[in-house]
Amino acid sequence: MKILVAQSGGPTAVINATLTGVIERARDLGYEVIGGLHGVEGILESKSVDLSTLSGKMLNSISHTPGAYLGSCRYNLPQPPDGVYDVLFNFFNSNKIDAFLYIGGNDSMDSVEKISKEAQRRKYPLLVGGIPKTVDNDLVETDHCPGYPSAAKFLNVIASEFVVDSMAYSKPVICIIETMGRDSGWLASSLKMVEKIVDGLKVMILIPELPVSEEKLLDTVNDMKSPLLISVSEGIINEEGKYLSALETVDNFGHPKLGGAGEHVATLIEKIAKVKFMNPAFSQRAATHIISEVDYREAKGVGAAAVDTLAEGKNAFFVGIERVQASIGYSSTIRIVSIDRVANEVRKVPESLFENEFIDYIAPLIGKLPKYAFRR
Amino acid sequence: MKILVAQSGGPTAVINATLTGVIERARDLGYEVIGGLHGVEGILESKSVDLSTLSGKMLNSISHTPGAYLGSCRYNLPQPPDGVYDVLFNFFNSNKIDAFLYIGGNDSMDSVEKISKEAQRRKYPLLVGGIPKTVDNDLVETDHCPGYPSAAKFLNVIASEFVVDSMAYSKPVICIIETMGRDSGWLASSLKMVEKIVDGLKVMILIPELPVSEEKLLDTVNDMKSPLLISVSEGIINEEGKYLSALETVDNFGHPKLGGAGEHVATLIEKIAKVKFMNPAFSQRAATHIISEVDYREAKGVGAAAVDTLAEGKNAFFVGIERVQASIGYSSTIRIVSIDRVANEVRKVPESLFENEFIDYIAPLIGKLPKYAFRR
Repeated sequence: MKILVAQSGGPTAVINATLTGVIERARDLGYEVIGGLHGVEGILESKSVDLSTLSGKMLNSISHTPGAYLGSCRYNLPQPPDGVYDVLFNFFNSNKIDAFLYIGGNDSMDSVEKISKEAQRRKYPLLVGGIPKTVDNDLVETDHCPGYPSAAKFLNVIASEFVVDSMAYSKPVICIIETMGRDSGWLASSLKMVEKIVDGLKVMILIPELPVSEEKLLDTVNDMKSPLLISVSEGIINEEGKYLSALETVDNFGHPKLGGAGEHVATLIEKIAKVKFMNPAFSQRAATHIISEVDYREAKGVGAAAVDTLAEGKNAFFVGIERVQASIGYSSTIRIVSIDRVANEVRKVPESLFENEFIDYIAPLIGKLPKYAFRR
Repeated sequence: MKILVAQSGGPTAVINATLTGVIERARDLGYEVIGGLHGVEGILESKSVDLSTLSGKMLNSISHTPGAYLGSCRYNLPQPPDGVYDVLFNFFNSNKIDAFLYIGGNDSMDSVEKISKEAQRRKYPLLVGGIPKTVDNDLVETDHCPGYPSAAKFLNVIASEFVVDSMAYSKPVICIIETMGRDSGWLASSLKMVEKIVDGLKVMILIPELPVSEEKLLDTVNDMKSPLLISVSEGIINEEGKYLSALETVDNFGHPKLGGAGEHVATLIEKIAKVKFMNPAFSQRAATHIISEVDYREAKGVGAAAVDTLAEGKNAFFVGIERVQASIGYSSTIRIVSIDRVANEVRKVPESLFENEFIDYIAPLIGKLPKYAFRR
């Protein structure tokens, strides 16, 4: 079997671990693997690379490198039929590709489904599988997505450092942090954990699932005691459904200001309290220096499982992660589902995980967090 | 001997390591140590804490905790004579304080000098010492300041992750990062190291020591090839001596924008290229999760050395770090100097360290950095 593997969408700290999981398992099973460069977009330009010469040491280095080793793209395949599929299947055919594995998020799973359907229509013998990757954690049919636990770990560590640092001064200050998450609040919600790290801290979570009333927000903040951390998902909306990041605000110096959602919230709140703001930006998805061990293991695991699933001759599948319910410790297992159940679905944070319940969900994925000794 | 120790100014990732260095050495020598809370400001309100009951395990935890364990302040003592010194020396007297150690940056060293002079004027038998702490690294009479190496390490790690992450897409992008450093470019300059981590990358350094011409900057960027990282010190000025952070700019959507120096540079450059911007903000000084080992060791070392210097009966001193010139490896030694040589001086990055020479200066302070395996 000859497998084409490619990466798509925003990188995560472990997307390359998944790639090496694919390569290593394929080698174990005697399969050939080539890499498509810059996802489907690059494959359409016949850009590919031989992965057979990479040493074990090199694969280990790749698995701990940020970014996407094969390059990524933000490209959505058109609805078939379309001329691009002629180009794509011409590439598959001339390179004798038997299987295509795509490591990506929502858009990539849509591409997987389209390619799979088009292969059937063309009667081209191609097995296609989607492997999850997204710090947004918003794919359905999986307990969580590789990349998310590491992003959540990084955020929890720097947010707790941020809060403890801010407590050095005698005047109370409200810490505000913006997290990734345009359509869902998984990353912002993960910061509820900081309450467990920093004793006495209250964490307020603002997520797209819960529209924000600016007036009520100010009232709530007014009623709350310091120390307070406000975790703001970049995609929060107001009660009219408008992104807060798209609203102009006026800062304390009278300057009109247009920034991200977190900056918007910070500018609002600094009218009634002292605030400190930070946006960890790309570090959330790139921080390979502090990945979650569970995440790294599972990221390699879903890559390997995808190859195993190809070996079973399955097609049009998605590699999900299922949490094993156990009384002690955390473990997970692979759950293969049909790709059509995943493509074009966005998983929001369910009400059952709002607030404190989120801690039970996220804690085992992050693993060990620092403990601090501080005075208040 | 009864020692009063306090912390002042912006915390660093190792300011608490210095505190524990003081406490541990004092215990070894049989001295009593109490902590002044929130620096001189809190001491003036008689706020102090007994440090004798802290266990060894607790001290170890404190040394790895961000923020300032004793609390900090941004308070400058007035020129003596002034009524506040009556309050201050009343505290010293009623608490039978024999010595005062102040862990801080430029302003704190000024306070140390003032207190020392005032003690002499009052003939109060007080030994006073200043212990360096600042991520800005701008104290004179020391090779570097504790806190700076860890901040530089964190910045280098996240900047290299940022750059490698950005290389995932086929379109070239210019990465821009803002660092702390209002008066000097030590932190921004440290990112020259990223050229060593990310093969083929060019790093442009913008620091307060070198006024920026916006026109020339755009020309230079235009002439440079990707990948490019621009490291922007928050305190950069233009040729008229104005802070770039105070200048309004207009973004690609026509919105007037007023942000930090890095944002200003990003808004300028996005007119001619695709840019990605991040500001690690408080994480630079709070990232205890990735401290430099050299920094931690030296931070404890300057604390211990301050107590040793008190034991020798010295007064009005500053604990500097001297780099030992050796052909192999890095080592340093303590260098005690008179506080009046340090107070109110700001050390700028010297011309001899501009560009590549900076790497020899910073590399041994940071220690081991990650290696990545990526394609370009």
